[in-house]
Amino acid sequence: MAPKRLQLGIVGLGRMGKRHALNFLTRASRSQIVAAWAFDENEAEWGRKELGPHGAQIYTDYDIFLRHAGLEAVVIATVVGAHAEQAIKAIEQDKHVLCEKPLSTNPDISRSVVDAASRKPHLKVMCAFSRRFDASYRKAWDRVNSGTIGDAVVFRSQTCDMLNPTGFFLPYVKASGGVFLDLSIHDIDLCLWFLGVSQNLVVKSVSASGVCAVHPELAELGDVDNGVGIVEFWGGKIAQFFVSRVMASGQHDMSEIIGTKGKIVVNRQPSDSLVEMHEAGGIRRELPTDYYGRFEQAFVTEANEFTAACLDDKPLPFALSGAAQAVDIAVALRDSLTTGLKIHFDETGCRKA
Amino acid sequence: MAPKRLQLGIVGLGRMGKRHALNFLTRASRSQIVAAWAFDENEAEWGRKELGPHGAQIYTDYDIFLRHAGLEAVVIATVVGAHAEQAIKAIEQDKHVLCEKPLSTNPDISRSVVDAASRKPHLKVMCAFSRRFDASYRKAWDRVNSGTIGDAVVFRSQTCDMLNPTGFFLPYVKASGGVFLDLSIHDIDLCLWFLGVSQNLVVKSVSASGVCAVHPELAELGDVDNGVGIVEFWGGKIAQFFVSRVMASGQHDMSEIIGTKGKIVVNRQPSDSLVEMHEAGGIRRELPTDYYGRFEQAFVTEANEFTAACLDDKPLPFALSGAAQAVDIAVALRDSLTTGLKIHFDETGCRKA
Amino acid sequence: MAPKRLQLGIVGLGRMGKRHALNFLTRASRSQIVAAWAFDENEAEWGRKELGPHGAQIYTDYDIFLRHAGLEAVVIATVVGAHAEQAIKAIEQDKHVLCEKPLSTNPDISRSVVDAASRKPHLKVMCAFSRRFDASYRKAWDRVNSGTIGDAVVFRSQTCDMLNPTGFFLPYVKASGGVFLDLSIHDIDLCLWFLGVSQNLVVKSVSASGVCAVHPELAELGDVDNGVGIVEFWGGKIAQFFVSRVMASGQHDMSEIIGTKGKIVVNRQPSDSLVEMHEAGGIRRELPTDYYGRFEQAFVTEANEFTAACLDDKPLPFALSGAAQAVDIAVALRDSLTTGLKIHFDETGCRKA
Amino acid sequence: MAPKRLQLGIVGLGRMGKRHALNFLTRASRSQIVAAWAFDENEAEWGRKELGPHGAQIYTDYDIFLRHAGLEAVVIATVVGAHAEQAIKAIEQDKHVLCEKPLSTNPDISRSVVDAASRKPHLKVMCAFSRRFDASYRKAWDRVNSGTIGDAVVFRSQTCDMLNPTGFFLPYVKASGGVFLDLSIHDIDLCLWFLGVSQNLVVKSVSASGVCAVHPELAELGDVDNGVGIVEFWGGKIAQFFVSRVMASGQHDMSEIIGTKGKIVVNRQPSDSLVEMHEAGGIRRELPTDYYGRFEQAFVTEANEFTAACLDDKPLPFALSGAAQAVDIAVALRDSLTTGLKIHFDETGCRKA
Repeated sequence: MAPKRLQLGIVGLGRMGKRHALNFLTRASRSQIVAAWAFDENEAEWGRKELGPHGAQIYTDYDIFLRHAGLEAVVIATVVGAHAEQAIKAIEQDKHVLCEKPLSTNPDISRSVVDAASRKPHLKVMCAFSRRFDASYRKAWDRVNSGTIGDAVVFRSQTCDMLNPTGFFLPYVKASGGVFLDLSIHDIDLCLWFLGVSQNLVVKSVSASGVCAVHPELAELGDVDNGVGIVEFWGGKIAQFFVSRVMASGQHDMSEIIGTKGKIVVNRQPSDSLVEMHEAGGIRRELPTDYYGRFEQAFVTEANEFTAACLDDKPLPFALSGAAQAVDIAVALRDSLTTGLKIHFDETGCRKA
Repeated sequence: MAPKRLQLGIVGLGRMGKRHALNFLTRASRSQIVAAWAFDENEAEWGRKELGPHGAQIYTDYDIFLRHAGLEAVVIATVVGAHAEQAIKAIEQDKHVLCEKPLSTNPDISRSVVDAASRKPHLKVMCAFSRRFDASYRKAWDRVNSGTIGDAVVFRSQTCDMLNPTGFFLPYVKASGGVFLDLSIHDIDLCLWFLGVSQNLVVKSVSASGVCAVHPELAELGDVDNGVGIVEFWGGKIAQFFVSRVMASGQHDMSEIIGTKGKIVVNRQPSDSLVEMHEAGGIRRELPTDYYGRFEQAFVTEANEFTAACLDDKPLPFALSGAAQAVDIAVALRDSLTTGLKIHFDETGCRKA
Repeated sequence: MAPKRLQLGIVGLGRMGKRHALNFLTRASRSQIVAAWAFDENEAEWGRKELGPHGAQIYTDYDIFLRHAGLEAVVIATVVGAHAEQAIKAIEQDKHVLCEKPLSTNPDISRSVVDAASRKPHLKVMCAFSRRFDASYRKAWDRVNSGTIGDAVVFRSQTCDMLNPTGFFLPYVKASGGVFLDLSIHDIDLCLWFLGVSQNLVVKSVSASGVCAVHPELAELGDVDNGVGIVEFWGGKIAQFFVSRVMASGQHDMSEIIGTKGKIVVNRQPSDSLVEMHEAGGIRRELPTDYYGRFEQAFVTEANEFTAACLDDKPLPFALSGAAQAVDIAVALRDSLTTGLKIHFDETGCRKA
Repeated sequence: MAPKRLQLGIVGLGRMGKRHALNFLTRASRSQIVAAWAFDENEAEWGRKELGPHGAQIYTDYDIFLRHAGLEAVVIATVVGAHAEQAIKAIEQDKHVLCEKPLSTNPDISRSVVDAASRKPHLKVMCAFSRRFDASYRKAWDRVNSGTIGDAVVFRSQTCDMLNPTGFFLPYVKASGGVFLDLSIHDIDLCLWFLGVSQNLVVKSVSASGVCAVHPELAELGDVDNGVGIVEFWGGKIAQFFVSRVMASGQHDMSEIIGTKGKIVVNRQPSDSLVEMHEAGGIRRELPTDYYGRFEQAFVTEANEFTAACLDDKPLPFALSGAAQAVDIAVALRDSLTTGLKIHFDETGCRKA
């Protein structure tokens, strides 16, 4: 008898929703897509054509979608503003949830998702911090966790997107909450993971600055295309972030964990492959053009591990609460950027007025 | 209605057979393993436990295995001495065949597989040169093929296995035909691919040398643990090979394609991940410990593309005949090594006495 | 007739003074060391032994030293607290001056050196920012200056010293003014150079944080062994600094200049040589153990160019005033670190209360 | 009293002669150029202008030059055909000699220089294998010599010149003896150094091949622009060489020493500086455009060490006899290339008919 497969629904069939759908369809053999919710007719058409033949039913009403017979789990890949409400509804309907990051651009709403999940402890509810599933970050974590670099005290990390002078992303950016919530949220999550190896981290202060180098339109949104930030934690650990949307060479996401006995670096030398061009002008390596080129395999691992956790009732690799904490810090970075002020937190992590 | 899946049988459930089986099982969603042939009871037991629940029947008689109802294709991953006979029998029973490299350690037997396949042109018969499916080699090929480096004239390539002073591989090596047939066969195949971009390559001469640096036992087998070779082709192209079983740092397979306008290098800077250790002693990157650590994803692509070619009756990415030509060259390298003589071929590629 | 040589005196024969002396002696053929001032008998003894045979007279009284017949120029390499007074006295005695960094740990005193020099415009007075003479930084500058990366908007830079758990440097650190004045001063100077390519930079705000990871004793001095900082400039450029005394792998000083069309990085992949060790554990490169291992050649170039500027009355490669500006920023970083406050400057660069 | 300086003469003021002259003049403080021999009036004019003011007398008659009062040592940097005769004459006149490589393109003539030197054991006579003075090769040697990689058994090395489609070097090449004598001679010398660490190396066989990829004119000279070679030594060590004149990216000279316990690589990642361009198209590093860009500092060290050996009567870092052995191997590689035959040597290193 063939093994049971997780009965799965995809929520949103936009760029990231399609990728999730195809990964679960062809690269996560223990799952089966039985339903999908589409935001509009274009997405629905894609779903009927690509997922339909494999047995998936396409819905445009979210509540009806959630009542699809046998549905066990949902993957939420909609615009950020919809994440929390859709996640909470799914939790209330007893579905496991894999929700794209960030939970929300609002700390309170983020926390409401965590609260909803905590009322259903039998469910697997996870924020899709894909880098947690990346083989290199995991290898780095194993080394840090085993004490290789002593006590991890400083975390430096960057998310750098490829330059696109057309600004195609500007409409999207409006709803994203700005670079720190849209991009640095990953670095913040990694920071909580790596610096939190031996203790519970409580944020103490946040400072940020930034510049609109290529996209002056961002200034009107209170956003920047290059941002820098410092985060201090109670007990004496610090993080330094860099975020950019204007890397001419391509996507370059990188992290350093600095300990008392050594340092571990992930992706100092980015490349889209093992190919080097030796040509007039020197030696050249090409970079991925977007985050998916860097993290594709991590998304596949995420799909498989989420599936396995649901089917086998095993713990998820990380807790949902950190996703709300990451939003707190990202929002503080954004607020420091727009106000020019350093933002302080008390020893319980509550932001001071 | 769910799409049709290729009804597949695995031949041999040793180290590589297991890997193929698991790849087709969980990472090639258009295929279905319906049968497997096991060499002995250990392998059979593994098959019953791991493949049985997914619907595969395990055989120990190859002829009966081939008559499994509905079987469409086989993957041959047995010892090299069995490849050719099993492939030919499968072809005669009208099965598509993916056969591990090399076809044989004997040029004539290799060619008999090619001949058998040519009598069944509707079948897909492919030698499993996994590097042809590696994303980096493919990117390199696209560049070479589009003329980026001008005319490709020199090919330099190495296959270097990790040092293992225990010599665990020695029993295996006896049947392998030596380093050039066991390891350099990949470099030779790549050479035929890359230098053959604009012309049909005909070998003109072969020279080789080698040394038993760590494993003196290899000398008794006429083999070495470090080998070097030069291959000349009619028309003025040359290749230079290096092969080693004693790389202390790990697996390092690398190729250079040198053209009149530039050079392309694949994997000059090997690494098992994007992690760097900055520690006392400097900066260190770890390497894969074996070829599978380097080429795992290529094997997955191979499984998916072979499946698609069979299901959709599309051409395979490369012809079977090159596999026999690669054996000719590998055997000549081995003979040059053992005799100390340079070996010559006429302009039709026939080896001179 | 042999060409005239610059008649030079070395002030201070400690670690750095010895290096300057030997460089001028054997690698700056247009200069001649005619005198040296030694702080104590140990230094004087070294001077008599190593410099004496080449014609140098050793003094322990600074005023008498300055009156050495024919003395044209001095190189000041004493403790930071002595720099300014010695420089001003030399200027007043009409000597060209090459003074080690920083001019002082006090902004006003720093500026008094600039003022003294401005009263003697015929003299060459330079702060020894050695990185300005490094071939790689100069190449980077040529590219930035020629517009290769568009408008330079973000500068990220680090000075990272090798970990030495013995804390041998602790006594020295007391007088150094802390990591930002002792080490980051180089990054600040580079920042003023690179971001100032197309405009006069005026600092707007400074934020810093830090941690005593390995050397808790530093906390008593108001210092840290890992520091991070952000500097904003009026007009919308920003810099991000990292400084550390605990790099297990060795010295790693690196800078990134990010522009609207590209980025230039200096020394992303540090190494003490072109040697790689391929060994059990992977591939390893060793790093310089201190700044001199990284910048030795820059010091030689500095010696030769300072000599040439004096002899040929050519302009120095950079103005002295920036050295005072760098002290302003370094002091603000230190103050931000110790107070936990963000420090603001008005549009003329005057620090707000 | 100022220390004594070596009274030196430069023989030949062409491209390399000028470089030697300037290095000894300004970067080897213990030497003094007192004379130079110029091949023609252009060279003589340069010498009078650049070296004259520093006290050097310029000659165009070699015998008279050698009789310059006080002359102690000569540096020979003429065309290869003149090396041996000029060296022997200088030796006979009791001058120390630093002679550019190769000693000759003829094995017997090479050996006559060795013989001449052996009759004057008080003289320092050295072939200018500049790579022996390179800091990275020396570091590699220290590691090999201390047993870090076990027994060194395989040496792989390449000299690759930058592509210059104009073929400016073609006239020069005629007299050079071909790529193996002109370029690979360095790799051969390094091979004798590194593989000879624990034993006296005796060549056993030589095989070579090559292709005229860009410069078909070379075929008429029996030369190639890309060459590969294998050298076997008695006792079981092997070397593999690659030489090219058509590297589009720039100069890339590199060596690997493979031992029973590890491998050391010199210059796997060539670069002209520490600058990286991150730009549209990816990350790019530029390479030196010629050997001097790679080895400039080695030439300076060579000048200083040769000077010191002469002044202090200390042993030279390597024996002259190896220079003749290197010519033997290079000539055999060339002969194997032009005849298509493998060339054998007996156990005393005598070439078989």
